[in-house]
Amino acid sequence: MIIACLDLEGVLVPEIWIAVAEKTGIEDLRLTTRDISDYDKLMKHRISILDKYKIDIKLIQEVINKIEPLQGAVEFVEKLREKFQIIILSDTFYQFGMPLMKKLGNPTLFCHNLVVNETGKIIDYKLRMADQKREAVKRLKELNFNIIASGDSYNDTNMLSVADYGVLFCPPQRVIDEFPQYSVALNHEELFNYFIQAEKEIIKQ
Amino acid sequence: MIIACLDLEGVLVPEIWIAVAEKTGIEDLRLTTRDISDYDKLMKHRISILDKYKIDIKLIQEVINKIEPLQGAVEFVEKLREKFQIIILSDTFYQFGMPLMKKLGNPTLFCHNLVVNETGKIIDYKLRMADQKREAVKRLKELNFNIIASGDSYNDTNMLSVADYGVLFCPPQRVIDEFPQYSVALNHEELFNYFIQAEKEIIKQ
Repeated sequence: MIIACLDLEGVLVPEIWIAVAEKTGIEDLRLTTRDISDYDKLMKHRISILDKYKIDIKLIQEVINKIEPLQGAVEFVEKLREKFQIIILSDTFYQFGMPLMKKLGNPTLFCHNLVVNETGKIIDYKLRMADQKREAVKRLKELNFNIIASGDSYNDTNMLSVADYGVLFCPPQRVIDEFPQYSVALNHEELFNYFIQAEKEIIKQ
Repeated sequence: MIIACLDLEGVLVPEIWIAVAEKTGIEDLRLTTRDISDYDKLMKHRISILDKYKIDIKLIQEVINKIEPLQGAVEFVEKLREKFQIIILSDTFYQFGMPLMKKLGNPTLFCHNLVVNETGKIIDYKLRMADQKREAVKRLKELNFNIIASGDSYNDTNMLSVADYGVLFCPPQRVIDEFPQYSVALNHEELFNYFIQAEKEIIKQ
């Protein structure tokens, strides 16, 4: 009775804002929390950029439709769901994530929402809750599931810390250095093998 | 940010034990909690019957593989997941449920486990937790999701009672009479329409 909790961007699909920047050619959309550390300011900036270039929800979903999962991700999800229940825990928005879920075989997605008006203009965003990845893992454990979690970056380490097993997927070196307690997978085959290994350890307990 | 919590048997697939009784011709497997009210006694009886007829996990999974989802269920899940995240909340066992999940497009399943030994013999069962459907809805609501739930029988009414909206699907008359507060859908099209209506009411709030 194990749930695999997977981060989305960087594990199964590319970073969505970066991909949108590339597909639209709007360099300003490349900014991340490394450039503007206040997430709310960053999001408001992104929304103003979308407004400036008249990119409404329909257009951005067409753009996102052209983004392909990372190489090996579709097969990874397919193999993983034979053995585990999968829930994707992501800090993206449903409007961005859903076209990508289709390409991944429709796993369940827990994320946030954009606020869109009747004309399709993105006017705001709404976080479902703070630290939602960690909270989700905690609640699922309260339902007597064991959790094996994987993510690629800082914003996943809270989730990994409450999971039964945590695996970093292609993380930046500084994350590896700061969190030596987690296994590191460099491709989906390695990641799958870590899940199988973690399952064995959970069963032994 | 709505999750659709769906019961499995009676809503998406036929009653699994009944279908197994039909496919195997073993009448004794038709017994339900109406015949043996103590669930633990009923399950131990079922496990002894499987042992008597030498039905191991492999054989039973072959039998379950031949069970088809209820008419309209596959299309219902397909349409529903365009608008909502879906989690199936069932009191079946993963060993029974998983072959059926494949036929339904692999939605996430929360249920229980059979205990199987190395030779494939079913020796026991393990409930993940008591009242797991209700507990799951409660925990998902704590994650700031709204829940629209549907089930067909008594064992779903606890789950419906904590959901934001509850819909009974083809329930027995006595359940309709006892729980007049829930809408009643008689086919998947009606059920889908109740979900859309409930979504509108949730958005209005």
